[in-house]
Amino acid sequence: MSTEAAWEPIARRKQAERASRIPSQWKVPSHLLPSDPPLPSQGAQNVMHIPAKILSPSEVDITESYSVASLLDAISSSRLSSEEVTRAFSHRAAIAQQLTNCLTEPLFDTALSRAKYLDTYLRKHKRAFGPLHGLPVSVKDTFNVIGVDTSIGLASLCHQPAKQNSPFIDLLLSLGCVIIAKTNIPQTLASLDSVNNVFGRTMNPINRLCTAGGSSGGEGVLVAMKGSMVGIGTDIGGSIRVPAMCNGVYGFKPSNGRLPYGGQALTGVEGMSRTSVQAVAGPIARSVEDIDVFLREVGPRAHLFGEDCMPWTLTPSSRDAKQQRRPTPPHGSGKNGEFVVGVLRSDGNCALLPPIDNVLTDVAGRLAGTPNVKVVEIPCPKAWTKSQSVMSKLMGVDGGVTMADMIDKTGEPLVPWMKTRFRKGKPQPLTRVAELQALRAELEREMLRVWIEDDGEGRRRQKIDALVCPVAPHPVPPIEGYNAVGMTSSWVLFDYPAGTVPVRNCTEEDLQLGTPQPGKPLSSWDEKTRELWDENKLDRRIYLDTPLSVQIVVPRLQDEKLVEVMGWVDRACKGQADVKSKL
Amino acid sequence: MSTEAAWEPIARRKQAERASRIPSQWKVPSHLLPSDPPLPSQGAQNVMHIPAKILSPSEVDITESYSVASLLDAISSSRLSSEEVTRAFSHRAAIAQQLTNCLTEPLFDTALSRAKYLDTYLRKHKRAFGPLHGLPVSVKDTFNVIGVDTSIGLASLCHQPAKQNSPFIDLLLSLGCVIIAKTNIPQTLASLDSVNNVFGRTMNPINRLCTAGGSSGGEGVLVAMKGSMVGIGTDIGGSIRVPAMCNGVYGFKPSNGRLPYGGQALTGVEGMSRTSVQAVAGPIARSVEDIDVFLREVGPRAHLFGEDCMPWTLTPSSRDAKQQRRPTPPHGSGKNGEFVVGVLRSDGNCALLPPIDNVLTDVAGRLAGTPNVKVVEIPCPKAWTKSQSVMSKLMGVDGGVTMADMIDKTGEPLVPWMKTRFRKGKPQPLTRVAELQALRAELEREMLRVWIEDDGEGRRRQKIDALVCPVAPHPVPPIEGYNAVGMTSSWVLFDYPAGTVPVRNCTEEDLQLGTPQPGKPLSSWDEKTRELWDENKLDRRIYLDTPLSVQIVVPRLQDEKLVEVMGWVDRACKGQADVKSKL
Repeated sequence: MSTEAAWEPIARRKQAERASRIPSQWKVPSHLLPSDPPLPSQGAQNVMHIPAKILSPSEVDITESYSVASLLDAISSSRLSSEEVTRAFSHRAAIAQQLTNCLTEPLFDTALSRAKYLDTYLRKHKRAFGPLHGLPVSVKDTFNVIGVDTSIGLASLCHQPAKQNSPFIDLLLSLGCVIIAKTNIPQTLASLDSVNNVFGRTMNPINRLCTAGGSSGGEGVLVAMKGSMVGIGTDIGGSIRVPAMCNGVYGFKPSNGRLPYGGQALTGVEGMSRTSVQAVAGPIARSVEDIDVFLREVGPRAHLFGEDCMPWTLTPSSRDAKQQRRPTPPHGSGKNGEFVVGVLRSDGNCALLPPIDNVLTDVAGRLAGTPNVKVVEIPCPKAWTKSQSVMSKLMGVDGGVTMADMIDKTGEPLVPWMKTRFRKGKPQPLTRVAELQALRAELEREMLRVWIEDDGEGRRRQKIDALVCPVAPHPVPPIEGYNAVGMTSSWVLFDYPAGTVPVRNCTEEDLQLGTPQPGKPLSSWDEKTRELWDENKLDRRIYLDTPLSVQIVVPRLQDEKLVEVMGWVDRACKGQADVKSKL
Repeated sequence: MSTEAAWEPIARRKQAERASRIPSQWKVPSHLLPSDPPLPSQGAQNVMHIPAKILSPSEVDITESYSVASLLDAISSSRLSSEEVTRAFSHRAAIAQQLTNCLTEPLFDTALSRAKYLDTYLRKHKRAFGPLHGLPVSVKDTFNVIGVDTSIGLASLCHQPAKQNSPFIDLLLSLGCVIIAKTNIPQTLASLDSVNNVFGRTMNPINRLCTAGGSSGGEGVLVAMKGSMVGIGTDIGGSIRVPAMCNGVYGFKPSNGRLPYGGQALTGVEGMSRTSVQAVAGPIARSVEDIDVFLREVGPRAHLFGEDCMPWTLTPSSRDAKQQRRPTPPHGSGKNGEFVVGVLRSDGNCALLPPIDNVLTDVAGRLAGTPNVKVVEIPCPKAWTKSQSVMSKLMGVDGGVTMADMIDKTGEPLVPWMKTRFRKGKPQPLTRVAELQALRAELEREMLRVWIEDDGEGRRRQKIDALVCPVAPHPVPPIEGYNAVGMTSSWVLFDYPAGTVPVRNCTEEDLQLGTPQPGKPLSSWDEKTRELWDENKLDRRIYLDTPLSVQIVVPRLQDEKLVEVMGWVDRACKGQADVKSKL
């Protein structure tokens, strides 16, 4: 008599299916596989270098040497075939999967068929199928792809292939993209560690002792491992920006209504997000340039696929975009047209741990040293402090009923992070949700004051063009250690577009070994953050060489501007901009 | 012992206050006042010509001869003072009030103070206070203006002056506008006849036997009477577009998030609209050119005032915009770049009465006769039919509790139109609202198919650039006769920008006297519409010379495009465009 819960055989079957979709010749030799589970005694366990040891030189070249623009050029000019590109990326994704467990649905077979079709199309028509002809992309498991499960790691949703594509999938395919794989997510999609009972845990490839982030954790990892050129994630609490931060890549969270979100896996009652707060879909990529080129094709067509979208004013850039890039920022709100960047540090709920404070100081200094830029430190607006709690309540108005039922159906246990955080409740009364929405509007009005100034006679002008702030108060934390999401979730509450830009790695100096954190906790959230810096509880060296990122934020629906600002801040931070003085 | 209900003395005091704010020298001689109530035996009772009999020649010139652009020019170049302009418009508004009962709050005193300040400012600084320096505007009673009641015609809200301005008011003032008056609305704001117990009924100035429309009925009338250059209304079911139609002026309903809506009178629980469906604010004016010039200044600054707004890409036009206007439409979606206009007729709930069908045919013919335009008749999409019911349910999710309580508080009776339509219920459960939102999303996806085409390989393009459809299935109906709002409310459900363009007046020929309407009712809504054409119940001559309008609709958030298309359609209909063939 078996005491096995219903979910267990389902998960085994699902994992076996997944394994079977990796060709045997792509199995990683066991001596290259890291220990599982990772052993702290072995140190950081960075697996980023392993794919290059396995791939052919041509596969390494294809997956490592191109930008989105140059890869598209190479394919559409037939220097590379879509087939060989797809094969190289599929192979690399298969390796990434074996090293980090980042995939839910390898789609290598259908990707290769699609690639062959594209090659044939190009030969036959002497023109590309679409402007992203042959671009290897990956998507979070939440997107529906015809014939493929959208299980989101829940046993009760396994083996129920989707009958139609999500609109974003149709959009990607219409442009000529090749979908390599779907990627892993956390149980409930509401945690920052991508672990679930069906697929297990996705590991951080830079340091397997650290979290890979979530909920688009698989995307963050796969893009960082160069198994995909662009990964599509979704974000409501930080689910694009957090895994981008954890894996040292770029993440772009648009405003609501800019990229198609509809037709996703449901984690609650359908339509509920429209009563409360709406998640959005957006890209994770290796560079701002890649995001830029991608959005210039996707954005202006978003409204043809997403019932919830408006067309972007971006237009396709010439492929030699690099040369066109201005070294200095656009005309801004400063008295002499300077571009004014506001620096927000603590959100008032959590103090910043030293590496985060340091990287913000570095970025502020870099920007201040750039011509036509003015940097202003902004005292934490109360509305930012309050937003975390309002957002958290709005995200929970449905009481988690549907999710709890889906979990219970097959007797699944909650994953560790959710154990203390997930509890089935009841949907809130409509008047309570209205009350939260009213609070939200009040906070939005308060936040408006951060951006604008009044001349005393009621005439207003923008005074801040963009904000730089942390993604989190802490560096990439250990597995299960991700804490407050207020610094990311707030920008969804306010519906400001926001993106993650990795700046540099954490250094020994950032660690301030032996120096305890001063001050007292600001909140219970801060207590948890302080634990991540408490040398009695953890060896800070875990943070060494993990990426430190900042978040760039612009006002509502100014997504076109966010792409531009992210690019310019990134170049300034990487020293590619015209910097007046060295730091 | 008095049997008087609590609301009655409040209403009397409020009306007396209102009357006291009209200077005695501006009282209309009784022989020029129409009969009250209007007597059908006296015929149409058009009062449009009366103000010119009373005003001085200079006041007639100021209020009748200028566009927004030319008036702004005249003031900023000191050919006219803001004071004399404000006085002329205030006088005209005072006359309009006496003829039609269109105002709730005459603000002539503060308007004149403001105008004097603007004149002083201009003399002192040698430049205008703002780009709309001296523009006389009016606003629906729902907007908060410091020190002025926002009673929305409810006794329980009278004599409680607002403590702060609505953001749109701040925006108008920051640009230099002068607010002449606040205007009348219906009890509950949810009906199409602007009547309430406190202020009484607003009358249609073109035909006092017909409805003035609502809920921005006072705005429609005041703008038509030329007592204001631009009136700001709000719209959820059609409340800008319907009074524009009823009074033969232009109404612009933007997408959500384009013009500041916040800080309005609450008709329900605060924040409720964010759970269900959001009303929007927009202008009513005498011409598309006036709307254009207005929006070019207001739009790009909307996000500085409205926490819910994005900046428009419109830029201020040179004041000689007339010359710049292209005679032909912009590049469109047709095979050869033609601008493709889809014509929608019946929404499947109500058949069109002959004058409405005729005016659509006229417009379609005019447009088809314009170079670079393609006109396509579009079969009614099922989603359009279904939208009326979903919208109506979403608008009622709060059960009308707050409104019912506000009405009950002083023992107010329901106004006639609401008697059979308003009933206090209970707020819906959140899951029911989510269900409606899911239905809405499904309809949005269906409607997308109206705009786009697929090449068979998943590549999509827009195939329709704009839609022309009726504002209502019937002409301007008799008082209390306004029926289905599905043709206007649907575009709020879908969040498409939509505007009213008056085309021509109803002719004897349109009336088809003696010819009964063929066919059978499509629905209970249609039964009511048919009653408006049933010669056993009504003399169709009531429609003679009332304005016939069409509605122009473009996709979500493409508000800039709507301004352009409305302008171009208007010129085509008025014969100002380059028309190939005469009709």
